[in-house]
Amino acid sequence: MSEKKAVVLLSGGLDSTTCLAIANEQGFSCHALSVSYGQRHNAELEAAARIAKHFHVHDHQHIQVNLDAFGGSALTDARIDVPLDQAQGGSIPVTYVPARNTLFLSLALGMAESIGAWDIFIGVNAVDYSGYPDCRPAYIGAFTRLAKLATSAGTEGKGEFVIHTPLIELSKAKIIQLGTDLGVAYEHTVSCYKADKQGRACGRCDACQLRKQGFLESGLPDSTRYQ
Amino acid sequence: MSEKKAVVLLSGGLDSTTCLAIANEQGFSCHALSVSYGQRHNAELEAAARIAKHFHVHDHQHIQVNLDAFGGSALTDARIDVPLDQAQGGSIPVTYVPARNTLFLSLALGMAESIGAWDIFIGVNAVDYSGYPDCRPAYIGAFTRLAKLATSAGTEGKGEFVIHTPLIELSKAKIIQLGTDLGVAYEHTVSCYKADKQGRACGRCDACQLRKQGFLESGLPDSTRYQ
Repeated sequence: MSEKKAVVLLSGGLDSTTCLAIANEQGFSCHALSVSYGQRHNAELEAAARIAKHFHVHDHQHIQVNLDAFGGSALTDARIDVPLDQAQGGSIPVTYVPARNTLFLSLALGMAESIGAWDIFIGVNAVDYSGYPDCRPAYIGAFTRLAKLATSAGTEGKGEFVIHTPLIELSKAKIIQLGTDLGVAYEHTVSCYKADKQGRACGRCDACQLRKQGFLESGLPDSTRYQ
Repeated sequence: MSEKKAVVLLSGGLDSTTCLAIANEQGFSCHALSVSYGQRHNAELEAAARIAKHFHVHDHQHIQVNLDAFGGSALTDARIDVPLDQAQGGSIPVTYVPARNTLFLSLALGMAESIGAWDIFIGVNAVDYSGYPDCRPAYIGAFTRLAKLATSAGTEGKGEFVIHTPLIELSKAKIIQLGTDLGVAYEHTVSCYKADKQGRACGRCDACQLRKQGFLESGLPDSTRYQ
């Protein structure tokens, strides 16, 4: 097994699973990190566990954070409805979770420093999620600069943290093509904001619409399990 | 009550309590945020609840994160002993928790964006904790730049996040003097890494030694409850 360790943020969705496949292909010894933050369902996390096993990750940590204490997002606040059958717009959607990727990356950074890894993979995408501020290259650059100053390892100059965002400029169709080539079984992944307990997708929320469109454009069969 | 909201990170220790007293004195409507991250005791958090009540905060949120999954610090990993009766050195101590302040600030940022606050208070100190990388002004500057890019609120230019670090350049004695003037009852605060269930301090760990020395230098009576 490779000694080059990477922390891979793994939600169990299409993007993060592809990201794990890429890190694996690049020869990293992958340490998966899943974060549950008061999402409405656990299907994504169960998917993450299956996927981690499929890719023989070195280990898989699960961190729980009760972000629902804050509310403010349709993904963590039961009083806000997840929008269905809506056209994609340019504005920031109600499914935006305040500072979510900053939380994810801070946890990944803590894990990386604890295990002696310098590489972190996150499946952010600036194309499909243009409304999310924390999916853009400028944001990732700012976090990279922070990581150096935030840690004992970075401060002592023992190495440089690298935040890998291999999907950041790819369309959903390209991501699906790439993952398929790397052996991702997309039927195990869950993207839906309103998946049922078996992880079957609603087909109508923003995430489902993006995913459907991606399969359509890729010309590959859509293996998603629908409700 | 003031409409100028601030999120105040409140551990229940001497520094964060003084920080809350300062935010309060500056006229902010204070929203306290306590984070438990697998510390060995809950005495600090019980202290935080008492202090939040004493200062009539607008609300007090409690976020739990199981950082003990990572280990790597004497504060979260039961296999590593908290050092006792040691002289303070310049190197990074085993009580350092990887990326802890980045986690705290990311949670504070998420809470700030959720409630519409632009001001965050954190009681970091670059004098006493010279070994901790994430207590220095350069780190706080990097987080401030990140906050703008990380959030919907910051990206849309509706305002600027400010990370207030009123204690960053103060000695422990100065902090105690300042807090005493602002009505802090330090007997309610818990700094000890090995406090017992009643919140009584060991008097021997790094945190206790710094605190004792601070009271001595301030010339004020040390109201700490010892075991």
